Order: sequence, then structure tokens, then C-alpha cells
Amino acid sequence: MKIGILTIGNELMNGRTADTNSSFIAREISLQGWQVETMMSVGDDFATIKSRLHYLLTFTDAVICTGGLGPTADDITTAAVAKAFGLPLYTDEKVLARLKEIFVQYNLHWTENNAKQALFPAGAEVIPNPVGTAAGFALQVKDKLVFVIPGVPSETHRMLPEGVIPVLRRYFPQPVQHVVKQTIKTFGLSEAAVDEKLADFNFEALGINVGFYPVFPENHLVLIARADSQKQAQSNLQKAIDAVTVRLSDCIFSYGEQTLEEMIAAALTQKKLSIAVAESCTGGLIANRLTDVSGSSIYFDRGLVTYSNEAKISLLGVPADIIEKHGAVSEETARLMAEGVRKLAGTNLGLSSTGIAGPTGGSKEKPVGTVYIALADANETVCRHYRFRWDRKRNKLVFSETALMMLQNYLQEKK
Amino acid sequence: MKIGILTIGNELMNGRTADTNSSFIAREISLQGWQVETMMSVGDDFATIKSRLHYLLTFTDAVICTGGLGPTADDITTAAVAKAFGLPLYTDEKVLARLKEIFVQYNLHWTENNAKQALFPAGAEVIPNPVGTAAGFALQVKDKLVFVIPGVPSETHRMLPEGVIPVLRRYFPQPVQHVVKQTIKTFGLSEAAVDEKLADFNFEALGINVGFYPVFPENHLVLIARADSQKQAQSNLQKAIDAVTVRLSDCIFSYGEQTLEEMIAAALTQKKLSIAVAESCTGGLIANRLTDVSGSSIYFDRGLVTYSNEAKISLLGVPADIIEKHGAVSEETARLMAEGVRKLAGTNLGLSSTGIAGPTGGSKEKPVGTVYIALADANETVCRHYRFRWDRKRNKLVFSETALMMLQNYLQEKK
Repeated sequence: MKIGILTIGNELMNGRTADTNSSFIAREISLQGWQVETMMSVGDDFATIKSRLHYLLTFTDAVICTGGLGPTADDITTAAVAKAFGLPLYTDEKVLARLKEIFVQYNLHWTENNAKQALFPAGAEVIPNPVGTAAGFALQVKDKLVFVIPGVPSETHRMLPEGVIPVLRRYFPQPVQHVVKQTIKTFGLSEAAVDEKLADFNFEALGINVGFYPVFPENHLVLIARADSQKQAQSNLQKAIDAVTVRLSDCIFSYGEQTLEEMIAAALTQKKLSIAVAESCTGGLIANRLTDVSGSSIYFDRGLVTYSNEAKISLLGVPADIIEKHGAVSEETARLMAEGVRKLAGTNLGLSSTGIAGPTGGSKEKPVGTVYIALADANETVCRHYRFRWDRKRNKLVFSETALMMLQNYLQEKK
Repeated sequence: MKIGILTIGNELMNGRTADTNSSFIAREISLQGWQVETMMSVGDDFATIKSRLHYLLTFTDAVICTGGLGPTADDITTAAVAKAFGLPLYTDEKVLARLKEIFVQYNLHWTENNAKQALFPAGAEVIPNPVGTAAGFALQVKDKLVFVIPGVPSETHRMLPEGVIPVLRRYFPQPVQHVVKQTIKTFGLSEAAVDEKLADFNFEALGINVGFYPVFPENHLVLIARADSQKQAQSNLQKAIDAVTVRLSDCIFSYGEQTLEEMIAAALTQKKLSIAVAESCTGGLIANRLTDVSGSSIYFDRGLVTYSNEAKISLLGVPADIIEKHGAVSEETARLMAEGVRKLAGTNLGLSSTGIAGPTGGSKEKPVGTVYIALADANETVCRHYRFRWDRKRNKLVFSETALMMLQNYLQEKK
């Protein structure tokens, strides 16, 4: 089944409000196995609403409209939809009585313009609003459906699953199709490189759709398997997951919606390992991310943002002559920072970063984007050197991601 | 002039990604005094892109498309637009050379699929991408224009004002109208409270449009003045700025596009003041934000994320019995953290946070969302207590914003 979405409001057209309803509706519709064909946004204008609605209905089975159901003069959606199909408006007495009740209950002053919220096009089926005054409606137009619900997100979020989807299911009974999906989150390869590494595997032959979703600096894959039986869909999906795992190996950090921070939190907690962090170029971002997970005080002891050389020397015990000789941005300094913070905090692990986020501070040998990441445990310290090419904030983000990925692979005993 | 927006990507149609480009583009177009007529989103599909594009062109003067310019097989926008107008594709050798340069410069492995990003429809004018690999283009179709730029928001945000709008101005010269605008950024009042505080001033009488843009946890205002002369527009704008300043006073931190961090960086640098930070609940976020500004090593010495009590005691010298008696989340601890880090680092200022980001860890006396922020200088330590009501990540963000706002008001000698 093909669905169109039409969000209505002048505030969308001048950019004052970003439309978040469309993506919410699209997600809910996709979960049902239906397809969103086109989304559209228009202002509060009779002719435009009429014309776009008719256009959307030429290639969809149903159109879901949101917005423009308020009591004020600029809210015209109900009237515009009625006019689009040449229908008169009628007052729904039950809705009107409910509206007046709400006004009494909350001690509000009733003005006649509010009665507008009880008007519906002839033949409409009212969709109740459990959290506001504006009821919505469903309207059958030949063999198609038009829905109108409020644009206030908290109301849309209730009325779509509770009101719209049940009516869609009733009008368009669907053959049961089995859909299973799996998100795989990766870091360390560009979108093009991920694509190329997977190019030799025939996902289509298994009825698998592969979606690529770059979420800087990560690349997320979503595998969707459709088959006649749940078992077949699951089995095909597993084959695809295995193929991706072999091809992307160390770049995968999560099978599912969990973040890198959450994966690390779970592993540290499960292994009963504690960690301390010493940061230079990442400026506190690694510590901030590690503490984004509730319960992080179990494994996270402290983070030292040693921005000045003096802080590296006095807090972490990095010898001044090492910094003098190799520079603050060097493998030697990174190693000593990780070891120093581990020792100072008495934790199992020490993680450090030192680099040049830019845009200034680079040199020919150590250009902007250079970073050294070190991870120390009781037995050894591993240090790696990378070079990225982003602006300051994205360099900081990718530096922190690289450090967390090194930690995650260590915890998974990957390398 | 009427503009259509067409955002392209399967990730939009299944709701995995919310389209933020449309509202950004709409805002910029409105600022030019042009009208956005309809916004549309479609998936990565040849026939759909062609058909929607032709439809949009029936009632607009120009259509701005974003998305689908990546190197992978599912990115088909350029090819689809070329096909829509029956145009062959050509390789722009300059763009190709620039692409290869980027790959060499950053030591990336060149794969042939990347050459796709140098393909353009015949007759297109290339729009350079200053922050990424995907160049965009403008295409004249009879007396109308079609633009295609990348959908990555950071790239859209640069290429729309720098690439698209100048071409629009060249093709459709407009009668000169004098427009001046001013952004005012605030923190500390809800959108409704800002609205109410400004309600008594008649902006309309001055020909001023006031836009509200909440950017959590901040509220940004954009005042736009239109008049027949530059002088009149400027004078009206100044009256409106003065009215806002009087009404929102301490909640204003920036007149312009500068961030709170950038305002603080400028003030610290100008006043030659240094700072160190001691954080508990914000977990490194304050340090991270202070170091988001290039050149922060001039004023930022170090940040200590003292998550464990032991770290507060051993690093900052907070007496164990103070923590025992008043708790780690207390005014006493916050004051000693700020004073301790200031003394340890030998900086002019010390800033601290201690609180409960949640969702766990709250109590009846100190519920989730409680935070103490302290700022110490050579003469005194000021500590303030706040309570917020967000989820963990937003609590951390609003805690850090509160700390930075306290610092900014101190630097502006506001309180």
C-alpha cells in the first residue's frame, strides 16, 4: 500500500518550524510494511491544499494530512479538504459537547470560534483526540482514504497509531508478509568503502534490502528481509548478517540500535573493568561520551583534560623532556598520558588522546587532523596514529570515536 | 519568486532520518523575501524524482533539490535529474581532478565509484562544495532553474547561501528592497516566556518580523527589518534590538551568529583571563565546549572530570568529611571544586559542576535534574543551584549551558 503525507502550515513554509511529523509518520507506516511514496508540506491556503491533495491521490492509496485544525482563522484544513471534494461541512454534536465539557473542566472561557473544531466534511469518520481539543477525521474518496489529524507532535504521536492505522487496516486488509530487520553500526570505513566491501555479496538474491545511513562519523547499515514465512525471513537475514560480519569485521561495533558508548558501558560493566581518561585535543569529549550512559560511575573513575603541557607534566607525570624532545603531539606523549592516568586513578585501563584538531596548530610533519590514541592496561600500552581531514568539531568527534572504537575492539578482544 | 524544495533519500521515506534541510532552506529563502511554495520528499527512485520534479516546476520558478549525491549505487539524483530533462551526463575534469586531489591529500584509497561525483548533466553550472566531496549544480530548464546540492546538513548550510542564492539572484534580478537582520541568542527562558516578555512591544509597527528558533537549550530570535532605504531599515532594526535587550537582559549572550563558547573565548582572550574546570555530572562536556573554539589553549588550562569521590578528594582537595556531611552534590562541594581546580591549575578562574543527570541517582531532597554550579575568582566564589527536568543527555547539555552562561555573564560584568 502506498501512502502520501501532507503537512500543512505557514510556519513550515517560512522555516520557523521544522516538520518532525512526517518522519514520525513515515517510521510508523514503514513498520507496518507499507510504503511512504511522497511527503509534502504546504502553507494554509485553500487552492494549494486542494491541488496538492488531488495530486498525491493520483499515485497513493491514502494521504495522511496533519496541521491546520486549530480554532483560529488561519486554520483551514478541514474546510479546504471538504472543498477539495465538494463536500458540505456538518457539526458533530458529540464532538461539540465534548469540546464544551473540556472548557468547563479547565475553567476556560468558551468563544464561538471554538465550535469550528466540531466541523467535519459530510461522510467523515471522526478520529478522537485523547490529548487535545482538535479531533481528526478519515474520509473515503472513491477507493482511497484521506486522513486529517492535528499537527501538534504530541497529538500526532497518539492519533496516528491509535486512530489512523486501525482505520487503514480496516479499509485495506493486507496479506501477511514477514519482515525482519537488523541494524549494523560501523565506524572506520567511508560509505563508499563499505559499499565496495559488500559489493560481491548478492543481497537481492536473498530478498534483502540494504540501506546505508551515514551518521557522522559512523556508517549504519539496515538489512531488511521480506519472505513468506517468518522462519525464511529470519534465515535469510542471518545469512546476510554473516556476510556483512565477515566483510566489515573490526569496523562493526553494534548489532542493533545501541550506541558505541552503550556497547562499551555494557562490556566494561560485565568484565568489571574500570577506566580513566587523559585527553588533550579531544578536550573532554571522550569523558563526556563515556558518561553519557546512565550508571557510568561504575566503570568511569575520572577524566583529565590536560590541555597545557604543565597539566600533562604535573598531573600525569609526563616528563618535560619527553614533551620537549618528541612534542606534546607524539606517540611517546600519548603512551605516557594513558599510563599516567591509569596509574593515578588506579583503574584497570587508561585511555588517552593527543593531536591537532585545527584549524590552526598544524605543521608539515604533523598536519591538522593528526592524532595519537593510546590504551594502557596492566600488561601493555597500545598506541595508534591516525590522520583525518575534517573541521575542528568533526575532528574532535572522529578522534573521540577512534579512541572509543579502539577501546571497544579491545573489550571484544578483536585486536 | 516561487521556490519548490525537493529532498531526496530513502532514509527520509522510511523515517530513519528527519529532513532538517527543508526548514533551513525555507528560512534562508524567506529571508530573501521569496516564497517557498511547496516542499516535497521522495525516495531514491528515477521515475519518482522525474515526475515530482516536473510537477513542482509547473507552479514554481525554481526547485532546489538536496540529497542523493554520494558515490554509492543508491545515490542517483544527478542521473535522475539528467534523465528527467533528457540530458546526457558529462565528466567535469576540474571537479574530477579536485576529487582525486582530496583523496591524495588525505591518503584515501581511490575507487572508481568516486568518479561518479564528477558527473553532471550537460549544460549544468557546477556549484562547488567547500566542505565535502560532492559538488552540486544549477541547471536552466527553459525559463526555470533546478538546483541540486548535497543533503548532508553541514554541506547544505554552506552551499545554499554561497552557491544557490547567488545564482538565483543572477537569473532572477529582484527590485531592490532593503532588508537587514539581527540574530539574538538567549538562554534561560522558555520560548513561551520569551514570547510573553516581548508581547508589549509593537514590532509590526516598525516593519519588523520576529522569528523564534529554539535550538535546545537556547532560544534564538531573528529580527528582520524591511524598508525602502537601508538607513530606515537599520534604524528600525536598532529600535527593535534595544526593546529586546531591555526585556531579555541577562538571558542574551550573543548578538549575531556567534556561539556561547565563541563569545566566552573572545571575552577570556580579550581580558587575558585563564580558566580551569572541575566537572562531575557534566562529565567533560563543559571542557569539551570550551575547547570547541580554535585557540582555546590560550585561556583553557585543564579540565578535571572528577567522577568518583576519590578523584574529588585527591585531585581537587575537597575534604572527605565535607562530601560525607553534605554529599557530593551540594553547594559546599561545588564551591570547593571550583576553588580547588583554580588553585591547582593556577588560573584566574575556576568553574565547577556537580549534580544528578539521571535517570537514576535522584532522591527526594535532590531529585534528578538538580545541579550546583560554582565560579571562583581570586576574590570570591559564587555558587548557584538549579533544577531541570530533562533526560540524561539533555540535562548534561543544559547543565553545561548554565555553567557557561554564568561564566559569560561574569565576563560581561552582568551579575
